[in-house]
Amino acid sequence: MNPQAFKPQKRVFIIGQASVVGQQERMGPIGDAFDISEKDDFGMDTWEKAEAEMQRLALGCAMSKAGLREGDIDCMLAGDLINQCISSNFGLLDYNIPYLGLYGACSTCAEGMLLGSLLCGGGTGVTRCAAVTSSHYCSAERQFRFPLEYGGQRTPTAQWTVTGSGAFLLSSIPEDAFRNTGAFIPEIVECMPGCAVDRGISDVNNMGAAMAPSAVNTLKRYFESGHSPEEFDWIVTGDLGSEGSAILIDLMHAEGYNIQRNHRDCGKIIYNSEATDKHAGGSGCGCSAVVMAANILTNIMKGTVRDILFLGTGALMNPMSLNQKQSIPGIAHLVKITAAEKSEIEVGQ
Amino acid sequence: MNPQAFKPQKRVFIIGQASVVGQQERMGPIGDAFDISEKDDFGMDTWEKAEAEMQRLALGCAMSKAGLREGDIDCMLAGDLINQCISSNFGLLDYNIPYLGLYGACSTCAEGMLLGSLLCGGGTGVTRCAAVTSSHYCSAERQFRFPLEYGGQRTPTAQWTVTGSGAFLLSSIPEDAFRNTGAFIPEIVECMPGCAVDRGISDVNNMGAAMAPSAVNTLKRYFESGHSPEEFDWIVTGDLGSEGSAILIDLMHAEGYNIQRNHRDCGKIIYNSEATDKHAGGSGCGCSAVVMAANILTNIMKGTVRDILFLGTGALMNPMSLNQKQSIPGIAHLVKITAAEKSEIEVGQ
Repeated sequence: MNPQAFKPQKRVFIIGQASVVGQQERMGPIGDAFDISEKDDFGMDTWEKAEAEMQRLALGCAMSKAGLREGDIDCMLAGDLINQCISSNFGLLDYNIPYLGLYGACSTCAEGMLLGSLLCGGGTGVTRCAAVTSSHYCSAERQFRFPLEYGGQRTPTAQWTVTGSGAFLLSSIPEDAFRNTGAFIPEIVECMPGCAVDRGISDVNNMGAAMAPSAVNTLKRYFESGHSPEEFDWIVTGDLGSEGSAILIDLMHAEGYNIQRNHRDCGKIIYNSEATDKHAGGSGCGCSAVVMAANILTNIMKGTVRDILFLGTGALMNPMSLNQKQSIPGIAHLVKITAAEKSEIEVGQ
Repeated sequence: MNPQAFKPQKRVFIIGQASVVGQQERMGPIGDAFDISEKDDFGMDTWEKAEAEMQRLALGCAMSKAGLREGDIDCMLAGDLINQCISSNFGLLDYNIPYLGLYGACSTCAEGMLLGSLLCGGGTGVTRCAAVTSSHYCSAERQFRFPLEYGGQRTPTAQWTVTGSGAFLLSSIPEDAFRNTGAFIPEIVECMPGCAVDRGISDVNNMGAAMAPSAVNTLKRYFESGHSPEEFDWIVTGDLGSEGSAILIDLMHAEGYNIQRNHRDCGKIIYNSEATDKHAGGSGCGCSAVVMAANILTNIMKGTVRDILFLGTGALMNPMSLNQKQSIPGIAHLVKITAAEKSEIEVGQ
């Protein structure tokens, strides 16, 4: 396959973003940066409803920050880990906005940004999109592993599903850029959808290893399209954790690329892993979404970093496919985000 | 919310399509029209693997018809009903093509066409997309209702999940149109993503009633954007079945629109319901996909019909959300397809 990156035809800006998290995330090293944190049940009587509520809060907060209402947004791109994506379905039901459901496992945040940037940047009449996703430790444990009451033991390579939801508002209306109050405006300038990559990993407690080869596949294709790691302040992966991150760096080194200096992983950023028993780090759709919203994008907005690659990483499996002896393919979608100078954004055309 | 339809900026043609079905579908009134039919296990040792195999076969058949290879296709848009969309994940794993996962419940066929037309028609570098989806009676029964061995009774309003997969190849390269061997070339000229609509329906054995209001919502918004039912030879819904179709026609009548004459429903077309115990008709992601591929599009290619609206309808729920007393919202994505005259397709620009 040819390397193939796509570029929005019109400039696409991230004009608002919000993060909603639970208690474990609030206590982590970037806990102060999240917009909303509450008790993990978010006042609901089930974990699934709590997760849906996080999405509702996240999109509402992002819209409020950007000064947008329902009728201003052309469509929502959203998905999550729960069967049939009910967190997105029910969480966003309050919003009377056209809804396109995604399933990208933990890569959903990047998939939403990627599709949103191509839709808004494509000249087909779509101008503003929302990308929303979530995960919840308790709903994910029940569905993918064991009910919490079982008290299952965790392995050192296991990751901890983040309780959190992130929402991002994308727009190709130049004036909208100034709804973002940052000194610089995050702009999505290029993207590359990932291929599913199967390296035969079947250990559900080592998702980082299952996902790292897909990140290598996408990064390699991207660099072969005319880029090098040195161009980027940060190369941010979604949720490889400590195990998967080490594998990624090694595999990239074997391919002739050194990303040791600028690699960051949202799963390693969100928790103080050793102190709080989070083992290999955070995971889940919410992991990259809340770290991107609260940490990575804010660094772009402050001008601390100028050019980043964001690779949302996902593991494609369900408990039944594991029982049926299928391996765990991974996927990684790439989005290039740049700090746009306000003075260079042309309005009023 | 404002009515909002989107138009590809470049012309987008459906240049190849394929349908793969099981035995019940093969025996139905349009059984001869499907490209591939096999025993329902498709030679696999689980129903889930059988469903994945159908997707693999469907995309391969569509690519073969259009004379395209992996490297020719920019991305696959695919999803299904099985938890975490494993039918798409594993079915399409053989293809080294970038993969964007969707979850639109039974609306996935229309969602894939809609997104594919906006991506290919958008001037961002994407020129060819595949839209693929599937459902399987046996994997769906096990997951959503009862294992087949239980022998559960069905109600008269219940629908029958179609065992089938459909694949569609979309392209904005004018020369590609002639890969389609029809007398006329199906062209996607407009689309409108649906809003989730919740009317409080909670009867899992009456999905048609849950989905009909969302079809009304989308159709009404579309007609308010400057169209009328009379413009269309057929207004094709995905899988409302006999129950949901009657509700749709009534609700549209109450809104002042008469669609009795030109309404068609894929769920009513696929089975000889009374003779074969299929009750209210077919459903599932595969239902609209295989009927569109084998019947509706071929009528456009022959010139029997010129202008159609295709509304993929989906019910947004899972067994847990039902147990948690949530109702069943519906969603309906709209795609307008027209028979393009070959002489009016400008190539070589």
